[in-house]
Amino acid sequence: MKAVIIGTCGHIDLALSVRDRLPELEFVGVAPGSANEDTREFFVEQMEPSLIPFYESYPAMLDREKPDIAVIAPFFHLQSRIACDCMERGIHVFVEKPMAATLEELDRIRRVHARSGVSLCPMLPYRYHPEFRAAFRAVEDGLIGEPLLITALKSYKLGKRHPVYTRRITYGGTIPWVAVHAIDWIHCITKGKITEISAGHTTTGNRGHGELESSAFVSFRLSNSGSAVLSADYFRPAAAATHGEESLRAAGEKGVVEVIGGEAVLTTADSPLEKLPREEPRAIFAEFVRSISSGEKLRITAAEAFEVCELALKSREAADTRTPVRFRQPDSGRKEDS
Amino acid sequence: MKAVIIGTCGHIDLALSVRDRLPELEFVGVAPGSANEDTREFFVEQMEPSLIPFYESYPAMLDREKPDIAVIAPFFHLQSRIACDCMERGIHVFVEKPMAATLEELDRIRRVHARSGVSLCPMLPYRYHPEFRAAFRAVEDGLIGEPLLITALKSYKLGKRHPVYTRRITYGGTIPWVAVHAIDWIHCITKGKITEISAGHTTTGNRGHGELESSAFVSFRLSNSGSAVLSADYFRPAAAATHGEESLRAAGEKGVVEVIGGEAVLTTADSPLEKLPREEPRAIFAEFVRSISSGEKLRITAAEAFEVCELALKSREAADTRTPVRFRQPDSGRKEDS
Repeated sequence: MKAVIIGTCGHIDLALSVRDRLPELEFVGVAPGSANEDTREFFVEQMEPSLIPFYESYPAMLDREKPDIAVIAPFFHLQSRIACDCMERGIHVFVEKPMAATLEELDRIRRVHARSGVSLCPMLPYRYHPEFRAAFRAVEDGLIGEPLLITALKSYKLGKRHPVYTRRITYGGTIPWVAVHAIDWIHCITKGKITEISAGHTTTGNRGHGELESSAFVSFRLSNSGSAVLSADYFRPAAAATHGEESLRAAGEKGVVEVIGGEAVLTTADSPLEKLPREEPRAIFAEFVRSISSGEKLRITAAEAFEVCELALKSREAADTRTPVRFRQPDSGRKEDS
Repeated sequence: MKAVIIGTCGHIDLALSVRDRLPELEFVGVAPGSANEDTREFFVEQMEPSLIPFYESYPAMLDREKPDIAVIAPFFHLQSRIACDCMERGIHVFVEKPMAATLEELDRIRRVHARSGVSLCPMLPYRYHPEFRAAFRAVEDGLIGEPLLITALKSYKLGKRHPVYTRRITYGGTIPWVAVHAIDWIHCITKGKITEISAGHTTTGNRGHGELESSAFVSFRLSNSGSAVLSADYFRPAAAATHGEESLRAAGEKGVVEVIGGEAVLTTADSPLEKLPREEPRAIFAEFVRSISSGEKLRITAAEAFEVCELALKSREAADTRTPVRFRQPDSGRKEDS
């Protein structure tokens, strides 16, 4: 199989870091997502470009290389357009989250995906992180009972960010870019059974990063009558041990499961603070490549990825308008599962 | 000084546990808050009643003993009525939170307090807990910058609760009873500068406890454009190490302060994870008794206590109605500071 990379603004390392483990896959080209992207510099400086041919224009690259898979991580507002371009050519796409920057774009990518028949995988890797997987399985296995209260946190160091982050039009927002992971966790735990969204965000405290929101919260009402709340921020101080911090807690009548400090721990009526066993780490991109050959289902389907994106965009809307936004239930007749 | 106890449904141990340290204070009587309260049994079994005379009726006790201070912890819906009865007799009150079960009761207790001239202290002890005090001081000292994102959690074991907990009319609700502490923390950090409240709660998963909400969330929009979100629940499993769990995180441009596992930790651009020094523990009731003699201000004033109560009741309203509730800014002309 042949793969190309379009854009270098996101987590293309999710694909490149597992190259050695995918002998069946060859990277045949890399191109910027748009003319003003400094892909070449990024590749020249960091990515040993000699190993992957560089193209100035991705359509030309697609025409010439006819890849099977495109790894798509351009300026954030170009994700859905480029993903649609690829899918319309029959190319499977591994695409940076949130995948669409507006509900209209989301609608289009959903439609193009449905009629293209290709596979789509978002760069939402947490369902393959062993500690998150262990927590999600504990919930699936009924160990906490019905999940009725979920809290989640995602925090990053701000540092000095590329100008793409400083404008809503190119960045999308901190809810779609950062909080989306916690939204994915909550979606996974609740199976998307969310009825209403409230949210808030602010640009105060963003240290000169223009329109970038320094922090945000989102709350979801769940159809089981419970709630989920998440917070996301760029306030993690420079001196902190790691770039990012993340935590998750899901509570129900039978117990509490948490992901904290890279471990999943479960407390139930009988067992205080049991560290859950972790599976061997799996790379989402390797799983995606394998699923294309095998037809095996990914842990995050395209339908789920679209729903996570929709939740993120509607959460941003709820924050922008400071008004609750209804979220229609799943099972409402859409058929886009991949 | 003479003190009495009215009711035994709440945290009267906050007063009784420091008896030995208050030689200037004598407990001269204890009475139930209402006829159907099993105070006598509680006292006979647990409180060495021989040491404190028992009265069947609190008004008779007040008439006879003419105490200086009343420790008030009856069925939760009687808190404000009994506190008003005492204040109208010129008795200082140490009263269980939330102090009022409705906004009308809150209005009355505010008015009675204002014209009585007595001192009022709520059973909201966290501003005297060394780890919380350390965190609040770090914020006051500007170590995290403007607090823009606050998250808080309060979780308890449910066990088998007294029937008073199973009816809204006697219990008040999990937001006023449990979440109120986290509301107090957020009030302390933000100085009450909250503009809007959203909330949710559910009785699902309450294991036969009638109308008791098993879990709840509250989100606040702050007037500095930031947000605060808290969760409260009774899902802490029986096997957990302690009855309660609590955590607090406040983040701003300059740093993050957290209270977790009984410690306050600060992270800033220069210092990773510094454990903040803790003052010697202080008991809120002892501070209250001292403040009556000395006139010194408590760390939680009556005005702040009323505002925390108002936030709790309006949060409950937001949860009941599933509709955001405006919170008027402080500085709107009230003068009830004690």
